[in-house]
Amino acid sequence: MAGMNRRWMLVRRPEGEIAAGDLAFEEVPIRALEDGEILVRNVYLSLDPTNRIWMSDQDQYLPPVEIGQTMRGGTIGVVEASRHASFKDGDVVNPGLGGWESHTITRTASPVPRLPGVPLSAFMSVLGATGLTAWFGLIDIGKPQAGETVVVSAAAGAVGSIVGQLAKLRGCRVIGIAGGADKCAWLTGDLGFDGAIDYRSEDVGAALDRLCPNGIDVNFENVGGAIMDAVVARMNNFGRMALCGMISTYNTDGPVPGPVDFGRVLMRRLLIKGFIVIDYLPRAAEAFAELGPLVMSGQIKWKTHTVEGLENAADAVRLLFSGAHDGKLLVRVSPEPN
Amino acid sequence: MAGMNRRWMLVRRPEGEIAAGDLAFEEVPIRALEDGEILVRNVYLSLDPTNRIWMSDQDQYLPPVEIGQTMRGGTIGVVEASRHASFKDGDVVNPGLGGWESHTITRTASPVPRLPGVPLSAFMSVLGATGLTAWFGLIDIGKPQAGETVVVSAAAGAVGSIVGQLAKLRGCRVIGIAGGADKCAWLTGDLGFDGAIDYRSEDVGAALDRLCPNGIDVNFENVGGAIMDAVVARMNNFGRMALCGMISTYNTDGPVPGPVDFGRVLMRRLLIKGFIVIDYLPRAAEAFAELGPLVMSGQIKWKTHTVEGLENAADAVRLLFSGAHDGKLLVRVSPEPN
Repeated sequence: MAGMNRRWMLVRRPEGEIAAGDLAFEEVPIRALEDGEILVRNVYLSLDPTNRIWMSDQDQYLPPVEIGQTMRGGTIGVVEASRHASFKDGDVVNPGLGGWESHTITRTASPVPRLPGVPLSAFMSVLGATGLTAWFGLIDIGKPQAGETVVVSAAAGAVGSIVGQLAKLRGCRVIGIAGGADKCAWLTGDLGFDGAIDYRSEDVGAALDRLCPNGIDVNFENVGGAIMDAVVARMNNFGRMALCGMISTYNTDGPVPGPVDFGRVLMRRLLIKGFIVIDYLPRAAEAFAELGPLVMSGQIKWKTHTVEGLENAADAVRLLFSGAHDGKLLVRVSPEPN
Repeated sequence: MAGMNRRWMLVRRPEGEIAAGDLAFEEVPIRALEDGEILVRNVYLSLDPTNRIWMSDQDQYLPPVEIGQTMRGGTIGVVEASRHASFKDGDVVNPGLGGWESHTITRTASPVPRLPGVPLSAFMSVLGATGLTAWFGLIDIGKPQAGETVVVSAAAGAVGSIVGQLAKLRGCRVIGIAGGADKCAWLTGDLGFDGAIDYRSEDVGAALDRLCPNGIDVNFENVGGAIMDAVVARMNNFGRMALCGMISTYNTDGPVPGPVDFGRVLMRRLLIKGFIVIDYLPRAAEAFAELGPLVMSGQIKWKTHTVEGLENAADAVRLLFSGAHDGKLLVRVSPEPN
């Protein structure tokens, strides 16, 4: 095992936005495998808003990444060497949270199926954690019923765009909130959303009033802050909020407040449920039973924004916070297998 | 029908605390009954924190009481005259939200059972809306499991004291937050709570740290504000908050904010559910199936704080906000039937 592992290490916790110098790129020798281990050459690395949470030392759902550790991240790759009975060279696997590195050594991985006509990158988005997040938040928490109004924030994002399409398939009125005219045009033009609100150029509350004449029944919340407040203010009796993320707050220090008008949660008997996709992994088959056929038949659309080269990961992750990316943000770490 | 109805009318919306002059007491003639109506002589009037909400014109779960209307309130009384086939003189009935008045004319009422050894006032507390509120918030939303830790605020109040006892019966560790040493002693001494926190003399957060060494799984929230924040900060993964009320905020103008650290709702995957007891009335039998036997067998305790005379209702309701009452607050409007 004479190769080198290229990796990003967390060297200090970001203050506000992730800055040059918070992460360091280095090469270290790949150690020899022990019995039961496999060596995975990572092909795709997933970059997600939650990466910013992991870099901080705030109270969170997983242990923070420690200073000096390889940055945590989801990957898909190819087995290059195996001392594990279930895996052989060339297998395509998901090693779980392998990390921002070219090679991952692990004892646990799950095989990635190859579907005809479906790119491998789909398993890092609509058929990966992104799709599971969208499906379980919307279906298990939001429980959308035909004819109800669903509002999703960060709607042109990897998760939000799937949420809206799933809600449309259930016969809901779907309104997306996104940043920029191009994103909004994609939502209403290509994805079939009933309306889209450009939070950068419109008053979100006034637009919601116009686009949600019957109020809001389900909120898939990715943003938090003032956008969340505008939605909560218009929720109907027995409305449901699937709290998936609050990206507007991840670069701030200290606690971020809940809805400015919490009395509405009481008066409208709202349900608010925070969730993390890892809690749903044991139930993943429920989601893939719907998502798989939708992908195979072309009934659901998604975009991938692929940055070439692991060495660009630290710059690329910042795109998530500026919104300058277009689709599920991935890093191509090494070539796809044939 | 020559009698007079004595009633409290809302004459202006309170600013902050309910003040003398917000309500006016008057006598008006009782009109003749029409077919299908009954005349109820009210015996008990229930005073509840939500009365303050009804007096305001904020967005709420029922229409606000209009200026000039009889103040809304729950009552129990005796049928004095009936032109309704299902009711006869002397029947004891609940006319729903009859109002702050000596006599209510209605077309809909539910009969009140008489249980041996159980005072009529019990049907205005543990066997009334109070008991239903406690039972459904705790059981349907909180879903307490044996061994879990349940924290209830306003724990010595009518609802909170029932909540804690029901949670104890399910094998939970139960901590109450109340105002004053006497109330706390009642919780731990008479009701069997595992701990009580006097928010007037103790730091609530520090006391929760001491009394909830395994964190908090269920929060039955009656108070809101800083006390709610202290509880949320200590909730465990997959914790549940039954949001029943926020009495600390009812006398304030404008919106009241949600938990100061909403990120915790996400990180800990918390569920927050606002609820109003009227939504559960169709399912009331589920709660009474447990509460009835507990009352009959003396396994559950409750206190009633009865103020004599309808003319004192406007002063009495203010006790709810000072905490100077001791038990479910009722007004005895007229003598109990034999």
